[in-house]
Amino acid sequence: MQKLDGEVFSKNTESVFAASTNFIFNPSSYSSNKSRLRKPPRLNFSSMYKKTNSGNINKSHQNPVSMACRASRDSNETSPARKDDSSVHGLSETIVGVLGGGQLGRMLCQAASQLAIKVMVLDPLENCPASALSYHHMVGSFDDSATVQEFAQRCGVLTVEIEHVDVATMEKLEQQGVDCQPKASTIRIIQDKYLQKVHFSRHGIPLPEFMEVNDLESARRAGKQFGYPLMVKSKRLAYDGRGNAVAKSEEELSSAITALGGFDRGLYVEKWAPFVKELAVIVVRGRDKSILCYPVVETIHKENICHIVKAPAAVPWKISELATDVAHKAVSSLEGAGIFAVELFWTNNGQILLNEVAPRPHNSGHHTIESCYTSQFEQHMRAVVGLPLGDPSMKTPAAIMYNLLGEAEGERGFYLAHQLIGKALSIPGATVHWYDKPEMRQQRKMGHITIVGSSMGLVESHLNSLLKEDSSDCQSKTVLPRIGIIMGSDSDLPVMKDAAKILTMFSVPHEVRIVSAHRTPDLMFSYASSAHERGIEIIIAGAGGAAHLPGKL
Amino acid sequence: MQKLDGEVFSKNTESVFAASTNFIFNPSSYSSNKSRLRKPPRLNFSSMYKKTNSGNINKSHQNPVSMACRASRDSNETSPARKDDSSVHGLSETIVGVLGGGQLGRMLCQAASQLAIKVMVLDPLENCPASALSYHHMVGSFDDSATVQEFAQRCGVLTVEIEHVDVATMEKLEQQGVDCQPKASTIRIIQDKYLQKVHFSRHGIPLPEFMEVNDLESARRAGKQFGYPLMVKSKRLAYDGRGNAVAKSEEELSSAITALGGFDRGLYVEKWAPFVKELAVIVVRGRDKSILCYPVVETIHKENICHIVKAPAAVPWKISELATDVAHKAVSSLEGAGIFAVELFWTNNGQILLNEVAPRPHNSGHHTIESCYTSQFEQHMRAVVGLPLGDPSMKTPAAIMYNLLGEAEGERGFYLAHQLIGKALSIPGATVHWYDKPEMRQQRKMGHITIVGSSMGLVESHLNSLLKEDSSDCQSKTVLPRIGIIMGSDSDLPVMKDAAKILTMFSVPHEVRIVSAHRTPDLMFSYASSAHERGIEIIIAGAGGAAHLPGKL
Repeated sequence: MQKLDGEVFSKNTESVFAASTNFIFNPSSYSSNKSRLRKPPRLNFSSMYKKTNSGNINKSHQNPVSMACRASRDSNETSPARKDDSSVHGLSETIVGVLGGGQLGRMLCQAASQLAIKVMVLDPLENCPASALSYHHMVGSFDDSATVQEFAQRCGVLTVEIEHVDVATMEKLEQQGVDCQPKASTIRIIQDKYLQKVHFSRHGIPLPEFMEVNDLESARRAGKQFGYPLMVKSKRLAYDGRGNAVAKSEEELSSAITALGGFDRGLYVEKWAPFVKELAVIVVRGRDKSILCYPVVETIHKENICHIVKAPAAVPWKISELATDVAHKAVSSLEGAGIFAVELFWTNNGQILLNEVAPRPHNSGHHTIESCYTSQFEQHMRAVVGLPLGDPSMKTPAAIMYNLLGEAEGERGFYLAHQLIGKALSIPGATVHWYDKPEMRQQRKMGHITIVGSSMGLVESHLNSLLKEDSSDCQSKTVLPRIGIIMGSDSDLPVMKDAAKILTMFSVPHEVRIVSAHRTPDLMFSYASSAHERGIEIIIAGAGGAAHLPGKL
Repeated sequence: MQKLDGEVFSKNTESVFAASTNFIFNPSSYSSNKSRLRKPPRLNFSSMYKKTNSGNINKSHQNPVSMACRASRDSNETSPARKDDSSVHGLSETIVGVLGGGQLGRMLCQAASQLAIKVMVLDPLENCPASALSYHHMVGSFDDSATVQEFAQRCGVLTVEIEHVDVATMEKLEQQGVDCQPKASTIRIIQDKYLQKVHFSRHGIPLPEFMEVNDLESARRAGKQFGYPLMVKSKRLAYDGRGNAVAKSEEELSSAITALGGFDRGLYVEKWAPFVKELAVIVVRGRDKSILCYPVVETIHKENICHIVKAPAAVPWKISELATDVAHKAVSSLEGAGIFAVELFWTNNGQILLNEVAPRPHNSGHHTIESCYTSQFEQHMRAVVGLPLGDPSMKTPAAIMYNLLGEAEGERGFYLAHQLIGKALSIPGATVHWYDKPEMRQQRKMGHITIVGSSMGLVESHLNSLLKEDSSDCQSKTVLPRIGIIMGSDSDLPVMKDAAKILTMFSVPHEVRIVSAHRTPDLMFSYASSAHERGIEIIIAGAGGAAHLPGKL
């Protein structure tokens, strides 16, 4: 038996779940050496467990325990809603168990707290980001069968914030009637990226061409067929660029394969997809199988890690519609409720190809917290407990999300991050999220900043001023235009260009824009409402004979 | 010594704060019988306290404790920013202590969690709304001197979510160098509503006339001077209408006084202020004394309890400016950082009179969570720890907040609330907040719903459909207009009215509006963008000779 690194802390376990009439609980599972129940809220400490020398737990009753904790497990119901309505005090009494307690788990807990839905997390890290905000945090591995089983027994519905969980145990639990959302079958498909491609390909979803490779010979054949550069990928445990290698030519094939750990890890190759933009669509699927899609976003990666997300993506309407269709179709082919993130390529030849799907909230949907009527995190909670889905549309015209990645190890990294978030607090429309990870590492996601505003141009300019090295007020002010020259059509330009000429002569910073109140009312509105914010002091507006420019400039 | 109702649970207290070099901590305060430290996050349970029969606490060390908790107390610094920048890992290492753990404390914890700022709450109720989300919850009274002192020792800055706290102790603590925001002097002024009126009156803030009354004779004199109806008010412990009584005539004076508990409680009278609307302005004051004001809102009370808040208030621009000025002036006269809520009357004769000020986040600012760039709760956190203030302006054109008040006691009340929030989940733009209060009582604030959208008309219609008794889809659909008749000016009406006549003849639900793209571009924009959402299928737009209507309808 493995030695415990700390004390098993727990309490009168029968009483914890006494309020639930249909709960089956095995107190002996508390002696598991792989998990530890931390921080049980709403319990008073009138009885507690002490560890004996053998590592087992003995109860030492002192008082009867008064319980405010209402646990429920209705594993055989298809809907988590309880039949006895009168006992539901908030939005749902279902305890949501989340495998994983990273930043996604943390933001799920934040969303759940608004609805007063209780979230339990299973994560091996004692001070993982979700720990302090969860109803319970069980310290243990989400990839260990006994631990996952023990955890599942305490939850009304089991969900994930990471796909690299013990799926065989989830399947077993489902057979025993445990409610998993999304379904274990979905996690199994997604976990293995090759299996995922085969699945989507069978469902007619457009993908880059791909092929399993088992030896150098088959890899070379694939290279001949797909050409170079060629993507070589691990089937499993791949995320944030880990598990991907590029072979620029046949000569680089074997080093790319070695970099990924060789054929024993399970590899496949993918035809290079030259893209205009990488796009993503957050999709939610309810327990009733209804599906809603969030607006298409553009994701910008740096060294294979998500760096910036722009919402909505600046793409032609047809591309946006096509991307939404592909995302809808992809999620329709999977089973279970919750948020799904569909990553896509908009290729040079106008196609939308699926890159991969995540069966959980996703970095490309963080902006939804500030910019959409219902955030992806609240939506995931609604979906898995069976509440009606919320409105996924945007409540602000534009949003941009910037990931705070560790720029250095340890204290130096914290110092650099601290400088940036300190600056972000003064950027209009910016919201800072800090995940409170105990350790800083290079390229680790430590937090993110979302900037919302009345136009993409505005939020981009705010992000630029945040990221600018030299942020002395004086300098940034002289760079921003102070005078805007606008006109309804470029046919006015021959007349208006002289104004710009004079301003240039006197070194007055200015901008020239075609803004039509008739053809581009959205643009006109966002131009007018953001002009002051952007530092515009004077607007020179030119218009033709019959025009009446709206007067609120 | 009072008997403890449960076990004192705690842990190796020296180690808890070992990471802080400048923390002065007295372990003996842990044996206080008035407070109990619950749920210490990030502690492992390798050593714990056991209670002896005498009620004192003995340590039973087993392992050294590994600590992730970073406490700090820099009570003599004027700014809470630590000098040693490299040790600040998130936005602020300052632990914020909040006196009170109700729904305001809960929402402060939610806002703080995004910034990873640690909040401790002091509240007597073990399962108070803030408990589960706080970093620490000390169970104890915020009106008890020893408890408040003990609590303050563990916080970097002390603030309040309720003004009925032990202000004498706060003053004593301030003298000892404890950082209170807002200042104890402010709490003292606000606590006593008569003192508050005297204070604001001395600072030239417009108020309804008022007068202290010590006996029936002085009350009668005041009645002669101010006329009837006359407001009779308690000086202290007045909130949500408690402590107010109306005397409609001299005959009712003595019963009003009796209802308030007699002259011994401390009473004053106020001249009746006939108002058009009740308004409120949320104001934030930074540690650097900078002041920002949120948009003016309208508050609608029912039986003296806040019922609905509309943001922004539909008032003439001059009234909005005047209300903001009065609020700014009122808060300028008080000391300390944080959120202040200024309640105002817009009187029949066009005056703005101050009703009262709350030195904390307030019900009239709940809408800011969804509708403003920076919520009042995040803003309060920023202000008290000394971070830059955020943008208080609205990111959605309109918001309406509806309080979920207990409609019945106990399970029946929970059932009714559950019905309403279940419905709210399907209302576009609605966000549900449930405070998770353990007991339901008549008129108790149990949660709130905020609806945001593109116009006040839209969010009002959503609220109406939420509150409508009969919500059968069929019925609500036939009531909504399907055709909109719009024109730029009422001079177009003689031509356009025939369209309305025909629609009426055929029983087609429709609406008629004057929407000018030139004079009211805001209205035109929100009309166009919300038309589809409101069920409008056809727009008949009439315009004069030279008009070019923006084409995006």
